[in-house]
Amino acid sequence: MQALLVDLGAGQIYQEKFDLALGRFLGGRQFVSHWLAQEIDPACDPLGCHNDLVFAPGLLAGTHVSSSNRLSVGGKSPLTGGAKEANAGGVMALHLASNRIGAIILRGKTRPLSLVVIEQSTATIQACPDLEGKGVYDTSQVLRSRFGPDCAFGIIGPAGERSDAMAAIAFSDKDGQPERFAGRGGLGAVMGSKGIKAIVVRKGQGLKATRQLRELAKRVAQVAQANSVITEFFPVVGTAGTLEMVDEVGGLPVRNFRSGRFEWAGRIGGKALRETLLARGGTCGHACMPGCVVRCSNRYVDRDGKHVVGPLEYETIALLGSNLGVGDLDAIARLNRFANDFGVDTIELGGALGVALDCGLGDFGDTERIEELASEIARGTPLGLILAQGAAITGKVFGARRVPVVKGQAMPGYDPRAVKGNGVTYVTSPMGADHTAGNTIGCDVDHADMAGKPELSRNTQLRCALFDSLGLCEFISYAFNDDPEPFLALARLHLGDDVDLPTLLDQGKRTIMNELRFNEACGLGSHTNRLPEFMYTEESPPLGVSWGSPPRAFAGFWQKD
Amino acid sequence: MQALLVDLGAGQIYQEKFDLALGRFLGGRQFVSHWLAQEIDPACDPLGCHNDLVFAPGLLAGTHVSSSNRLSVGGKSPLTGGAKEANAGGVMALHLASNRIGAIILRGKTRPLSLVVIEQSTATIQACPDLEGKGVYDTSQVLRSRFGPDCAFGIIGPAGERSDAMAAIAFSDKDGQPERFAGRGGLGAVMGSKGIKAIVVRKGQGLKATRQLRELAKRVAQVAQANSVITEFFPVVGTAGTLEMVDEVGGLPVRNFRSGRFEWAGRIGGKALRETLLARGGTCGHACMPGCVVRCSNRYVDRDGKHVVGPLEYETIALLGSNLGVGDLDAIARLNRFANDFGVDTIELGGALGVALDCGLGDFGDTERIEELASEIARGTPLGLILAQGAAITGKVFGARRVPVVKGQAMPGYDPRAVKGNGVTYVTSPMGADHTAGNTIGCDVDHADMAGKPELSRNTQLRCALFDSLGLCEFISYAFNDDPEPFLALARLHLGDDVDLPTLLDQGKRTIMNELRFNEACGLGSHTNRLPEFMYTEESPPLGVSWGSPPRAFAGFWQKD
Repeated sequence: MQALLVDLGAGQIYQEKFDLALGRFLGGRQFVSHWLAQEIDPACDPLGCHNDLVFAPGLLAGTHVSSSNRLSVGGKSPLTGGAKEANAGGVMALHLASNRIGAIILRGKTRPLSLVVIEQSTATIQACPDLEGKGVYDTSQVLRSRFGPDCAFGIIGPAGERSDAMAAIAFSDKDGQPERFAGRGGLGAVMGSKGIKAIVVRKGQGLKATRQLRELAKRVAQVAQANSVITEFFPVVGTAGTLEMVDEVGGLPVRNFRSGRFEWAGRIGGKALRETLLARGGTCGHACMPGCVVRCSNRYVDRDGKHVVGPLEYETIALLGSNLGVGDLDAIARLNRFANDFGVDTIELGGALGVALDCGLGDFGDTERIEELASEIARGTPLGLILAQGAAITGKVFGARRVPVVKGQAMPGYDPRAVKGNGVTYVTSPMGADHTAGNTIGCDVDHADMAGKPELSRNTQLRCALFDSLGLCEFISYAFNDDPEPFLALARLHLGDDVDLPTLLDQGKRTIMNELRFNEACGLGSHTNRLPEFMYTEESPPLGVSWGSPPRAFAGFWQKD
Repeated sequence: MQALLVDLGAGQIYQEKFDLALGRFLGGRQFVSHWLAQEIDPACDPLGCHNDLVFAPGLLAGTHVSSSNRLSVGGKSPLTGGAKEANAGGVMALHLASNRIGAIILRGKTRPLSLVVIEQSTATIQACPDLEGKGVYDTSQVLRSRFGPDCAFGIIGPAGERSDAMAAIAFSDKDGQPERFAGRGGLGAVMGSKGIKAIVVRKGQGLKATRQLRELAKRVAQVAQANSVITEFFPVVGTAGTLEMVDEVGGLPVRNFRSGRFEWAGRIGGKALRETLLARGGTCGHACMPGCVVRCSNRYVDRDGKHVVGPLEYETIALLGSNLGVGDLDAIARLNRFANDFGVDTIELGGALGVALDCGLGDFGDTERIEELASEIARGTPLGLILAQGAAITGKVFGARRVPVVKGQAMPGYDPRAVKGNGVTYVTSPMGADHTAGNTIGCDVDHADMAGKPELSRNTQLRCALFDSLGLCEFISYAFNDDPEPFLALARLHLGDDVDLPTLLDQGKRTIMNELRFNEACGLGSHTNRLPEFMYTEESPPLGVSWGSPPRAFAGFWQKD
């Protein structure tokens, strides 16, 4: 595998070869975790010149297999101060794989604001002062007209340029829309700190679609299409359909986690979203990458049928909707549009705004005030700059004690008191509060009961770490559960015939262990494996459940591994 | 020794007995370090209900010995997130000792805003909603008229009530002025988080001044008065006299540490201060506690001879003066008055304002703008709330990379690049950037040269930890250097005849080791033993010196101990 090390300070590009054999790394998140553990000084300033920013497609990128083109982005997080891998769909991983590039690493800093352009397997650094301060959508248009439609783009907005801790990186989808986000952990701030506005990757020749590959891709698609969640849930209601489930189990974040059920859940859930989209001529069942059979995405349009944002996803609806007391999809979509264009993570934004409203900076449900707060962020007023640092700093500055974060990162759309499996994930994942590290909401269990949840979370986290390294979307994992064989066969093509499921899952563990070691060296040791204090003492209505486990219960969670 | 554990949540007072024998603790800072290591959950929210706030006089408090009534205040710091002991003069330690109380520990939280009143060796909790939002000076007046002049007060200002991370605790001096501060680490915020506006301690019967004690006190005074630093420096120019020395060696913080020499040093140094005070009828050679022969304090008056603040000290002049480009003692004194009254640490305030000006929020030297920024803090505007969190958060929110902090705490008045001994202290002290943990500026060495400084800093830190546990002021240590015998004889009165100098110094080490262990468990491990990144790459004019040592040079500093 080839990696491009782009030394921005020196203006030099180095090509490095890495051995793909097992025991080294698979790709994607495992490459990131390897790079963190080996190459990044854990004590460095995440926005200083000693942090690196890694873009690594998963191992299976470019294999023409459904949902296999996920991209891992990673580095030391300015939000958590520890290991961060954020994962995005779209076509960047596919384009990198088509150039046979297994990773791009941005090192050091450059000025003025620049692009990293990858064509024919090598990189150039090109100044782009004209893009300074531009939103993600405008930047995408300029880049598309400059470089043409056969390029993938990874773009930061003004938030990233300003190195806001909630800044994200937007990637283009198969239709050229820059709406697939590596959202969490503030990696857009790291990119901005390096002086890079966008990376541009021109499509290469690609992997040859051998008969063997085509057949495996077909088998994966067949297994997937036999799974009812993949055929009847994702393409129909998308991730938004999760809202009704979470509301039902009393785990929806409502008004800064003051309740777990929302009186207007029916207005903003998957069903409402689908009806709105169908009535207005929006799109359900949209795919972010070519050939994806899951098609969980959508494209939200306003009353006039004009594109607002796509996809409107569950986490966004929960954090910018119920968590702010907002029961109006149009208002949520507008705020989502703002977040995408300014280039911030919708979860962290919703977490920060929730804390701010809880501190009296506005009323829950007052969409006008909430949009005003967003505009403060855009204008960079002191209040806006506080919010742009995320929920933890917002809580700190305004003296809040009800701050729903773990390891400095805002919680996604599952109250850990009611969805205990996800709570265990928040508490124990090296990533901090992050549903993508091990989401248990799809499991048929009593979510409010801790029994069995530590094991469930651990297994889910190990599998997620594997999937994030293979580059497989979490949603295709339902098919993997039904029949792992075609996936194993794919892995064997890269890693040798002796690869079996335990070997692969063991790589998930290696990945997490690397991240834990890095975190430990950053000061994010197991003492940070806990929820904010209010969740130990405050019961979440309407179920009346508290977290229940003592603060130190999960300090040794990974030690037995 | 008796400790009072005030459980604010339960409204209960517990009396605990502690064994004073060596191998347990001496008092003061050592008691704090013991309490941190044994009683406080290192992962707790410093402003949550699981942090304790400890007030502990040093071992020698009440012995009538000069400069022996220092008070240690401690807990988990909301500023550094680790161990914190802040040390103050005044009469609180004396009053506690006169009641034979070796420590007060505030645990839990209460409402409404209350006082902890200690009379006749026990405590009561008394609501004081009338004091809400009151400044330190007004609060002091109200308390004096309510409780009379034979009480010592420990008071927080509005900053502490708001739990600002730079909030300090003010203690009354021998004249009843609330101007002796346990300034560092935000312990005022911890007190405020507990709902306590002030602790009030009525003077008890005191230790009997035996002939033995009187003789030892006399011997200490004699040794002290034979030392020229104690007789010719402190009572004449006070700590402000340090300014000329530090400017000379190029280590003065000037304009957010952009230079080490200040063109207006002559206007704000010890000589200028003395001349101003003498001309206006202010006071030099003022003592903060009864019987102190050092008398480093002063009382600053305005042109009309009206009291502004006392004492105006070196660290304040450096951080609120040269560090902000301000060469005007009156302006510095006004800002100092604001800091005292609002109840914030002048060092952290100066650090935060320096970063803010460096980020373009005003011009260095523009005293009007600087006072405006202070007023933002007082008014609690978003900008003010950012600044009130200290230099590190201010830097974070405004995206600064030149942020002179170690372990989240602002640097005092010595640029570590030019005063390397103090740099080693900043980097290795469990307290973060803190001159009181081991100040080497008084040593006759080449401060810009690292040779010998690690040893010098280590020895100074060990001695400071001992002095802070004995309750002895650092400034009397010059006498201790000349002849430690009277001090040893005093210690023997408490700790037994077999106590010698190595045994005592070993207790300094125990103290620091406890703090290091607590820090480690808080995530403030040895990886945080480093300066901010700009100090590795940027040379400090005019000497043109950089820090020189690699970032990891001091990770193992205490390991050999």
